[in-house]
Amino acid sequence: MLMQIRLTVAYDGGAFYGFQRQREEPTVQSVLEAALSELNRAPTEVRGAGRTDSGVHAREQVVCFFPSLPIPEERWPFAVNQRLPAELVVRKADEVSDHFDPVRQAKWKHYRYVILQDRVPSPFTRRFVWHVRDHLDLCEMRKAGKRMLGAQDFAAFQVAGRPVRHTVRNLRLLWVRRKGKYLLIDLVADGFLYKMARSIVGTLVEVGRGAILETDVQRILREKDRSRAGPTAPAQGLFLMRVHY
Amino acid sequence: MLMQIRLTVAYDGGAFYGFQRQREEPTVQSVLEAALSELNRAPTEVRGAGRTDSGVHAREQVVCFFPSLPIPEERWPFAVNQRLPAELVVRKADEVSDHFDPVRQAKWKHYRYVILQDRVPSPFTRRFVWHVRDHLDLCEMRKAGKRMLGAQDFAAFQVAGRPVRHTVRNLRLLWVRRKGKYLLIDLVADGFLYKMARSIVGTLVEVGRGAILETDVQRILREKDRSRAGPTAPAQGLFLMRVHY
Repeated sequence: MLMQIRLTVAYDGGAFYGFQRQREEPTVQSVLEAALSELNRAPTEVRGAGRTDSGVHAREQVVCFFPSLPIPEERWPFAVNQRLPAELVVRKADEVSDHFDPVRQAKWKHYRYVILQDRVPSPFTRRFVWHVRDHLDLCEMRKAGKRMLGAQDFAAFQVAGRPVRHTVRNLRLLWVRRKGKYLLIDLVADGFLYKMARSIVGTLVEVGRGAILETDVQRILREKDRSRAGPTAPAQGLFLMRVHY
Repeated sequence: MLMQIRLTVAYDGGAFYGFQRQREEPTVQSVLEAALSELNRAPTEVRGAGRTDSGVHAREQVVCFFPSLPIPEERWPFAVNQRLPAELVVRKADEVSDHFDPVRQAKWKHYRYVILQDRVPSPFTRRFVWHVRDHLDLCEMRKAGKRMLGAQDFAAFQVAGRPVRHTVRNLRLLWVRRKGKYLLIDLVADGFLYKMARSIVGTLVEVGRGAILETDVQRILREKDRSRAGPTAPAQGLFLMRVHY
């Protein structure tokens, strides 16, 4: 049975120490592997499309594994969900070829950052937003965002910790909009450097506050100096929305 | 200074053992009183408009207290919020006369119940919804709701535990509607018996499933028999939305 099962999973990142397996702490990968190993009655490894950091959520993360039981694809979500904590949910499952690689075949990744703009924080969305009281100038944020579009070197928008060969990424879309009391920032790119989405958001917020000029963005990109960009926005406002294949 | 401060507070009921002060467990009232007593530098009691049960949330609960510090009304939210956990937030404050009684002067209370209708639960809204997988017939639920409107004896829709003199309440509005994957049930009445909102919702869901006929509602009301009505819906889907004065 050389067939892979591809699961689409959603999780509240606040309940896990990131996606990637660690020795002690519960991570999305280790909790999923424990549930699948129990079901499969054999040690089962999963590969995920993206390693979300500690505290970062996912609406549609993609993970693959090789099943050792002939369970029909539509039965997997229910079977796995029964063995998962409420913070992690399998939304759907489908069979894919054994050649399918969730990392290499990912064409685009879509992230969304949610900012709450209100006088007071909210007890209901507190786990899923960054609360920013200050007024933010959307117009300036959008201008700054435009300067980040396209294939560029995002070295100034990564955080040290995960060495990579190339720091050029293609930012295809950056959309800043207001929805009620929320400010949504959608980012689509062919890949993201370590904490790149949160560095971009942190910089856009500084632009919105007037602390960084939108015209400075080009210089920050060119000079590749992390210290010139804004701070890294907190993890709890970030969602991996979708991986496009 | 015989002036009361009226606070409008929101809370995630999942973090508290109900509203009302208890000896050991943290309740909304006890946590608020601890924060206010610290600020006031004197033991401070609060009176709330409604005693929400353990697990029930509030968007705009009203609580009053007598301040012993001359803090201007607009400064209270920030001062109190600094001493509160993230699950409990003061949204606004205003000065009211010392005669104001948040319980007796309440004219209407508005509750909302939120049901998630989806194949799988959601890791993001799990603390704030009741997940019902079965298809529910909205049309039948609305017909049943209509039969509950007006001043009626709701003895069949209360749970034993808090003896009251009269069991007649005036249900002014009962609105059932779909919003995306959610089913919202809004209830407005001059008062609610113990677990009345959740008993009504539990019954409406049974009607939606076809397990109780909408035409049976009148008989259930007339016979005042709790066992004929549906089960009590779980606490985590219920929100005290607003108290009208």
